[in-house]
Amino acid sequence: MEAISNQQWIYTSRPDGLVGPANYQLRSALLAPDLAADEVLVQTRWLSVDPYMRINQSSKATWMAPHPIGVVQSGAAVVQVLSSASADFATGDFALAHTGWQTHAKVHTSALSKLDAATAPVQTALGVLGMPGRTAWFGFTEALQPKPIQVLVVSGAAGAVGSLVVQFARLAGVRVLAIAGSAQKCAWLKTLGAEWALNYKDFTDADALQAAIYACCKGVDMYFDNVGGMVSDAVLPLINRRARVVICGQISQYSDGLDAPLPGPRFLHHVLYQRATIQGILARDWLHRVDEFQAAVAPLVANGKIEFAEHVIQGFMQLPNALSEMFTSQHTGKVLVQV
Amino acid sequence: MEAISNQQWIYTSRPDGLVGPANYQLRSALLAPDLAADEVLVQTRWLSVDPYMRINQSSKATWMAPHPIGVVQSGAAVVQVLSSASADFATGDFALAHTGWQTHAKVHTSALSKLDAATAPVQTALGVLGMPGRTAWFGFTEALQPKPIQVLVVSGAAGAVGSLVVQFARLAGVRVLAIAGSAQKCAWLKTLGAEWALNYKDFTDADALQAAIYACCKGVDMYFDNVGGMVSDAVLPLINRRARVVICGQISQYSDGLDAPLPGPRFLHHVLYQRATIQGILARDWLHRVDEFQAAVAPLVANGKIEFAEHVIQGFMQLPNALSEMFTSQHTGKVLVQV
Repeated sequence: MEAISNQQWIYTSRPDGLVGPANYQLRSALLAPDLAADEVLVQTRWLSVDPYMRINQSSKATWMAPHPIGVVQSGAAVVQVLSSASADFATGDFALAHTGWQTHAKVHTSALSKLDAATAPVQTALGVLGMPGRTAWFGFTEALQPKPIQVLVVSGAAGAVGSLVVQFARLAGVRVLAIAGSAQKCAWLKTLGAEWALNYKDFTDADALQAAIYACCKGVDMYFDNVGGMVSDAVLPLINRRARVVICGQISQYSDGLDAPLPGPRFLHHVLYQRATIQGILARDWLHRVDEFQAAVAPLVANGKIEFAEHVIQGFMQLPNALSEMFTSQHTGKVLVQV
Repeated sequence: MEAISNQQWIYTSRPDGLVGPANYQLRSALLAPDLAADEVLVQTRWLSVDPYMRINQSSKATWMAPHPIGVVQSGAAVVQVLSSASADFATGDFALAHTGWQTHAKVHTSALSKLDAATAPVQTALGVLGMPGRTAWFGFTEALQPKPIQVLVVSGAAGAVGSLVVQFARLAGVRVLAIAGSAQKCAWLKTLGAEWALNYKDFTDADALQAAIYACCKGVDMYFDNVGGMVSDAVLPLINRRARVVICGQISQYSDGLDAPLPGPRFLHHVLYQRATIQGILARDWLHRVDEFQAAVAPLVANGKIEFAEHVIQGFMQLPNALSEMFTSQHTGKVLVQV
C-alpha cells in the first residue's frame, strides 16, 4: 500500500468573534501505511460539527486547556477501516474516533468504538446515539429532575441536543415551550411535541420575549438552556418555586463573550426567592453510563419514537464554513460533514 | 388592667433605593387588655432586623406577596408575657413571635414558641439559635455539601449568617476565605477561623478583588453568597470543577436592583465548564428540621465553640434607622433592637 495523502484542517489562529475559514489552513501530509500491532488505518466518513468547539478556541482554559494552535482541529468522527493490524477490526468496519478534521488517520484500536451499521446509521454515533444524545438524555432525565405536567422551556430547541430534549420531555408528560430561531423550526418543534414554540428573532428585546413566554405558560418549572444571553434574560425572571435550570450551552456568548463576558441583567435574586437550582452539564459527566443511555434511546430511534434531524453538509472542504454557520442559527438538528 | 398604649411602626411607602425613616410612620394604638381563651398579652423585648425585610418591600412578588402598605412592619420578635389566658404561658415567660414592629400584641399561643432563658439568652432565638442560625447550618451542611480541605468563600462574612458559616466551616475542616466590609471585620473573621479575609472596599473593581482572591486560594470549591454584585463578579470566574454555590442573599442589590435589575457580567459559561451548581436557599426550607438544628448548634453555643456577635441598638424608636444601616455595611453579627 502506498503512502496516503492525508488532508488536514489546521487550526491556525484564535478567532476574534465569529470563527470561520480565516482561522484554518488546509494542509496535505503523507501518511505511511505501515501499522504497529493493534493499529488500524482509517478513512474519515463523517465529521461532527459542534458548538463546544468554539469554546475550546477561547484563549482561556475551560473544562480543558485551550485548543492548541497549529494542529489539526480536534473533533469526533465516524471512520472506516482501510487496513488493519488488529484481530478486532476488519477492512470496511466503521468506528467512532476522535481523530479530528483530517481525511485519514492511524489509530490504536483502544481509541476506537466499533459501530454496527445494521443497528443504526453510523453517523448517529455523532448525534442521537452519541455525545449530543447522551447530553440530552441525562441532562433531561437526571439534571432537570422532570415531573409530568410541569413546564419546561428549551432554548436552542431545534439543535442536536434541544430537539431531543423536547421529545424526551413529550415522552415524560412534560409541557414544553420551545425557543428557536425561525418560524420553520418552530413549526417543526410543534410536530415533535412542543406545546408552544417561539421564534426569539420575533422579539426586539428580552422584555418582549418574556411577555410572550408568560402569555404561553405563565411560569417556568424547568429550563434547559443551550443559548444564554437574551433568551435567558427573558426566561429566568419567570422561574417558579424550586425551578431546575440546566446550563448545557451558552451559544449566544461563544463568538464574543467568552474571553471578555458581555453584560446582562443580574438574576440571582430570582434563584434565591424561588430556591431554584442551576447546574452546568457536559456530556462527559455521563460517559460512564453510556450503556444505560444506549439501552434507553437506541430502541426509541429504531422504532421511530424519536425523530433525529440531521443537517448534512457535503465535503471535507466545507468544514470551516460549517462550524461558522453553527453560530448564525442556520441549521436544524445535528450538523454533520460527510467526507 | 387598663388599655395599653401600643407603639407601632407603620410601613407607609415603598422605598426608592435605600429604605429608612421616610418609609415609616409611628402610630400609637390602644390595645384592650381582655383576652380570649389561649391568648396572651405580650410586650416586645427584642426585634430582629434582617436584610430580607427589604426584599419584601419590593413592588414585585418574591417568595411571598409584597409587604402591604399601611400596616405594622412585619418581623420576628422576642416577647414577654404580660398577662395570660393560657395554661401554657405564665406572666414573665419569654417567647419567639412574629408580631412585627410594635411594643405590644395579643397573640394566640399557637403562634408562639416558648423560650427558656436559662438555656440561652432569649435574643439568640432571633440569631444563632433562630432563623439566621438555621440558614447558616443547613445552608452549609446540606446545600454546600462541604468537604474538608476544600476552599469556601463566604461573602457578607461578618453578618449574622456569614459569621456562623465561617465557624461551621472551621469545624468541618474547610479552608475559608472571608469577604467583609472593613479591616476590623476581617481581623475578627480570622479569629473565627478564616484562613484569609479580604475587605472588598479595598478594591476598586471586581477584577482587582478577583486577583486578590486568586492570590489567596487560586480557585473556589464552594461559595456561600450573601451579597452578590461586585463580590460575586470577582468570585464566580474562579470556581473549580463541580463547585457548589449557595445564594443565601444578594444584599448589594436590595436597595437598587430588585425591581429593575442592574447589569453585571454574564457568568453562566463558567457554571457550564465547571459543571457547578447554584442553589438558592431560604431559612424556611428547613423549618421542618428545627429540632435537628437545635440539637447540633445549641451545644456549640452553650460550650463556647461558636461565637455569636450581636449588634444591639437600644430603643424602639431606632427601628427604621437600624434597618437602613443593614444596607450600608456598618454592623457586625446579628443586628437587634432592644425595646
